[in-house]
Amino acid sequence: MSWQRPDHRQYDQLRPISFEKEFTRFSTSSVLTRCGDTQVLCSVTIQNTIPKFLQGSGKGWLTAEYRMLPSATPQRQEREFMKLAGRTQEIQRLIGRSLRAAIDLQALGERTIIVDADVLQADAGTRTTSITGGFVALADALNKLVKQGDLERSPIIHQVAAISVGLLHGSPFLDLNYPEDVAAEVDFNVVMNEELSAIEIQGTAEDGTFTRTQLNQIMDLSEKGIKELLELQRQALDS
Amino acid sequence: MSWQRPDHRQYDQLRPISFEKEFTRFSTSSVLTRCGDTQVLCSVTIQNTIPKFLQGSGKGWLTAEYRMLPSATPQRQEREFMKLAGRTQEIQRLIGRSLRAAIDLQALGERTIIVDADVLQADAGTRTTSITGGFVALADALNKLVKQGDLERSPIIHQVAAISVGLLHGSPFLDLNYPEDVAAEVDFNVVMNEELSAIEIQGTAEDGTFTRTQLNQIMDLSEKGIKELLELQRQALDS
Amino acid sequence: MSWQRPDHRQYDQLRPISFEKEFTRFSTSSVLTRCGDTQVLCSVTIQNTIPKFLQGSGKGWLTAEYRMLPSATPQRQEREFMKLAGRTQEIQRLIGRSLRAAIDLQALGERTIIVDADVLQADAGTRTTSITGGFVALADALNKLVKQGDLERSPIIHQVAAISVGLLHGSPFLDLNYPEDVAAEVDFNVVMNEELSAIEIQGTAEDGTFTRTQLNQIMDLSEKGIKELLELQRQALDS
Amino acid sequence: MSWQRPDHRQYDQLRPISFEKEFTRFSTSSVLTRCGDTQVLCSVTIQNTIPKFLQGSGKGWLTAEYRMLPSATPQRQEREFMKLAGRTQEIQRLIGRSLRAAIDLQALGERTIIVDADVLQADAGTRTTSITGGFVALADALNKLVKQGDLERSPIIHQVAAISVGLLHGSPFLDLNYPEDVAAEVDFNVVMNEELSAIEIQGTAEDGTFTRTQLNQIMDLSEKGIKELLELQRQALDS
Amino acid sequence: MSWQRPDHRQYDQLRPISFEKEFTRFSTSSVLTRCGDTQVLCSVTIQNTIPKFLQGSGKGWLTAEYRMLPSATPQRQEREFMKLAGRTQEIQRLIGRSLRAAIDLQALGERTIIVDADVLQADAGTRTTSITGGFVALADALNKLVKQGDLERSPIIHQVAAISVGLLHGSPFLDLNYPEDVAAEVDFNVVMNEELSAIEIQGTAEDGTFTRTQLNQIMDLSEKGIKELLELQRQALDS
Amino acid sequence: MSWQRPDHRQYDQLRPISFEKEFTRFSTSSVLTRCGDTQVLCSVTIQNTIPKFLQGSGKGWLTAEYRMLPSATPQRQEREFMKLAGRTQEIQRLIGRSLRAAIDLQALGERTIIVDADVLQADAGTRTTSITGGFVALADALNKLVKQGDLERSPIIHQVAAISVGLLHGSPFLDLNYPEDVAAEVDFNVVMNEELSAIEIQGTAEDGTFTRTQLNQIMDLSEKGIKELLELQRQALDS
Repeated sequence: MSWQRPDHRQYDQLRPISFEKEFTRFSTSSVLTRCGDTQVLCSVTIQNTIPKFLQGSGKGWLTAEYRMLPSATPQRQEREFMKLAGRTQEIQRLIGRSLRAAIDLQALGERTIIVDADVLQADAGTRTTSITGGFVALADALNKLVKQGDLERSPIIHQVAAISVGLLHGSPFLDLNYPEDVAAEVDFNVVMNEELSAIEIQGTAEDGTFTRTQLNQIMDLSEKGIKELLELQRQALDS
Repeated sequence: MSWQRPDHRQYDQLRPISFEKEFTRFSTSSVLTRCGDTQVLCSVTIQNTIPKFLQGSGKGWLTAEYRMLPSATPQRQEREFMKLAGRTQEIQRLIGRSLRAAIDLQALGERTIIVDADVLQADAGTRTTSITGGFVALADALNKLVKQGDLERSPIIHQVAAISVGLLHGSPFLDLNYPEDVAAEVDFNVVMNEELSAIEIQGTAEDGTFTRTQLNQIMDLSEKGIKELLELQRQALDS
Repeated sequence: MSWQRPDHRQYDQLRPISFEKEFTRFSTSSVLTRCGDTQVLCSVTIQNTIPKFLQGSGKGWLTAEYRMLPSATPQRQEREFMKLAGRTQEIQRLIGRSLRAAIDLQALGERTIIVDADVLQADAGTRTTSITGGFVALADALNKLVKQGDLERSPIIHQVAAISVGLLHGSPFLDLNYPEDVAAEVDFNVVMNEELSAIEIQGTAEDGTFTRTQLNQIMDLSEKGIKELLELQRQALDS
Repeated sequence: MSWQRPDHRQYDQLRPISFEKEFTRFSTSSVLTRCGDTQVLCSVTIQNTIPKFLQGSGKGWLTAEYRMLPSATPQRQEREFMKLAGRTQEIQRLIGRSLRAAIDLQALGERTIIVDADVLQADAGTRTTSITGGFVALADALNKLVKQGDLERSPIIHQVAAISVGLLHGSPFLDLNYPEDVAAEVDFNVVMNEELSAIEIQGTAEDGTFTRTQLNQIMDLSEKGIKELLELQRQALDS
Repeated sequence: MSWQRPDHRQYDQLRPISFEKEFTRFSTSSVLTRCGDTQVLCSVTIQNTIPKFLQGSGKGWLTAEYRMLPSATPQRQEREFMKLAGRTQEIQRLIGRSLRAAIDLQALGERTIIVDADVLQADAGTRTTSITGGFVALADALNKLVKQGDLERSPIIHQVAAISVGLLHGSPFLDLNYPEDVAAEVDFNVVMNEELSAIEIQGTAEDGTFTRTQLNQIMDLSEKGIKELLELQRQALDS
Repeated sequence: MSWQRPDHRQYDQLRPISFEKEFTRFSTSSVLTRCGDTQVLCSVTIQNTIPKFLQGSGKGWLTAEYRMLPSATPQRQEREFMKLAGRTQEIQRLIGRSLRAAIDLQALGERTIIVDADVLQADAGTRTTSITGGFVALADALNKLVKQGDLERSPIIHQVAAISVGLLHGSPFLDLNYPEDVAAEVDFNVVMNEELSAIEIQGTAEDGTFTRTQLNQIMDLSEKGIKELLELQRQALDS
């Protein structure tokens, strides 16, 4: 018996995704990214300092912070205090690595970019939405620096987007929502650039395992989804 | 020389304020409250447990959490970790006390209400906006419980709103924004109910002092502003 | 029915207050302040460093720490560890703000004053006793620096004292002790200088509210109490 | 120009690996696992309690802790205190997930298995060595419980092993040591069971990206390495 | 050249010691113990609960907390926060062990005694003063419980006192003050009961070593000092 | 009735002790020290920095860290996190003091030596084994620096070893193992140098007290044991 998507999407269909730029006005850029019912506020700050391990290198850095508001989930979650959950740390490290792959740190110069991904509402896919929306906020912020004359040209060298794919009843489905995420046997997060070259693959069998054939189906679906996201990112940045 | 308001308001004029209900959909209620450029997301969760010190009393409890997103201010602020700043603790204690004055804890029964006030954008007045918007979210959430049949009637017994008043060049001004807040000699936060009886007054001379005459001017202005806020809250709840 | 004070004081009568200077001998000044059964050891240390945000400004700073010994209350209280209670932080911030209003930070020069208020015994009014006794310790310490030739003249520009007033059965009473503090509907802490100009007012309705008329009664009573405290401080400093 | 392995191994050749059972005698099992110069002490403790979220389910649980001795690396590393590094948390979560895939938690009954992976010496591959050695310690511990009559049969349902593969100069190499790990453009960790079905894949492009073709080469090499590890695990458990 | 004591005491002479009972009035007992310029407030609280590891044993427990006020030393010391200094923990464990040796935990019944030793002024010997004064507070508190009828008889079975001895220029001196403590080559703390049987000996060579002969001289001097302290404790308790 | 040693040793007989040098290869020295079933990995790191309080003094420093693996004891112990147990801090301070007595800090120059004592298996005597084995690791590390030409001569000025002695049924026994440690009435740890001069004595009556005569017996036994350990250390260093 095959899986029926609760929101009647095709197996290879993304949820509606949108990027609301200038959602707040005090950080360099701020993009409220909605992917179905998942909402992530991606804000970018650029500082004229660099971490100690880079001092004197002429290079810049990019780091990310990811956090969920307590009210983002049906069951309220306590704020993380005293120690970050392992899950939170994993996600913010992933966001940072993925977006660092989008920029030339040498061209950035001695600056630190901080990407804050604050989840206002969580219906699965928060880490991939943070990366996809975070890229729009990042490019938008760097464009502003170019316009202001702070940078000669944008240090963006790649476009980066991310998507989830899961196996349900043995078949792959694109962009899981929360009920699907809970039911999936295998859960993949895939990050790619504009050439559909992979930057990161994380595949976890929550219950069961996956074969080489399934891995190939998952990668095919990821490529299709990311191709569409890349187009939507470009539209948002041009608007 | 008298103070010229940077946004050309009258000395006794509030900033535009609005309450966007159902801003997110997973908590019992969620109200994005905008007061000029200050934006606070007020979410209410109601849990069927009570703190230890009330067990067996038949009474409920209300507590508040206040936090700012790092990107809420022109200068990015680090997330509070390991220990809450004194300022944050003061504010969330004030919000909790003020909103507890709105409800009959006995009529609430053995439930805990958590009010999350998350500041998305900060242009001064975040604590008073959290209280004024938090009341709307609180009443909205309790109305839903009544509609669902979980409560026979709403335990709301008072309407509560809050406003700031400051002395600038010796004269009182209503509802300061950030440049005014920085320049003020004296800073007051006043919380009142629908009868304009006071629940809390906090007046601090940042620079200088204030006389009995000035205290009376400040209280007059507070009453005027809170009267208007009470009306706007009622409109938002009825819509 | 009106409130009968458990210790038979008049409604406008202070508890006996005393200042024992040189209680310990290793800090610059040390004043054991007794207000009824409340005992606070106020010690002042003056260091030749300043916090980062003032470096290069030529100005000094004053900060306060407030803590209760576990044995200070009838029910032993655990030491605060890992995180300070919100109440503790509020109080030490209030003490700091109030005593900063007493000095000219420019005249202090690049020094940091630390006022330690350690409560040995708590019978209500610990924060106001800390401010009133803290001022005596502060002035005493600065006088010593002048005597030693470290300062040309004392940077004290105002005399500062504080008192509590509460509403019990609707009427105002001066300087509550613990049983009164617990029973009060409204609780005020007022800080004033030698001209009876206000530096800080904090009024909280624990149970009920207060009117403009009651606010005025509370302010009248505060002025009376503070006038007496100012006189007692002067006697202690002259002795 | 192709990569020359510093220890002259073939591109598809594992480092020498050995499992020293009963390395210490107080935990249920203890296996010092050596993979080249990497040494991980894998100890298994079995407790008759279960975490709260499983109480009443009849199921057991398995959790892992991973830590490095400060002296394990050429540059001494400080002990993690107050908060675990994100890397440490990611690794111990991966070890836990991977080894949970080896057992039937229902058959385990209401017991908690703790796998401690303490790295005595680190020359890269510590997470995969922890999983491969952790499986030997896990199976050994459960066999002892069967022998003692505490369990009717071992709840082991799958054999689990893990290996790293990296891209260097664009070509895949099996089981990187430290100098290779630092130089690799892409770093994969792959966990599989006895049927060579995948449990987890984590692929990160540290510098550059990887194509579908390279992904297939990496998976081929992983399968070869894991096949050999599975055989060595069986020999160790039978000895 | 032999050591000249800065306060002109004989080598075997104690500093003046006094015990001020009822220094504060809210804990069960409170003894301000002065030994020269060292002042320790020893307060005893008795609670009707016991730690988990003793539940069901019918036995009680005694624990101690030791802390210094920041103003206790010539150079202000920061409050210990987030983690206790090793020195502080050593001292409070020593005080607890020493005073547990004074009581029959079975006769105490299911109660926990907490001894708070708060150092108001520190001129060396704070740990031995805490033990000697703590014993007076302990006996005083238990006598009160007997008087109130809460206990049939006092569970005190031994009298306990403590003293320091140091080697200076190779010779032993009794009850070091701060300048002597800093100069001493070897530092001993000795705890004994009313029969001069030893409960604890801690001898540390800060600089150099000590011989068997010197150990015997140190023990002789300790016995002399403790004999005198035992007599003074008895007088304080009888007064 | 006298105590029968569970492992049939004479009352004055040490457990078999061995020192396995070069147990790991990345720290300057690494000695797996076995004393009966107690196993401590002693690793030495030497860094070219010194703590703040020594800067400009030309002197070096030595510090120790002591920790137990969770699997070291029959009952698994949780890792110490957020705060070190008092016992752990006492032990690592003792190890540091004892080994500092072995070196001339001036001759060491501006270097910091860190001795990590990680207990792999604990059968009592872990602190004395850490000192005795730590000395071998320390001397070995400094010899390597001399060989490499980093130091002209070793700053070792004393040989240091440590042993435990306990009273069981009133009689002294050398080098207690775990069942003896639990049963002992009095527990001594003694640290001496090559002249059998004492560096540290810690004697605790867990249950009962000890007399001068018993103290002398304990010291005699300690001297015998340490004499043997000193010889074994020399053999290990010469091999």
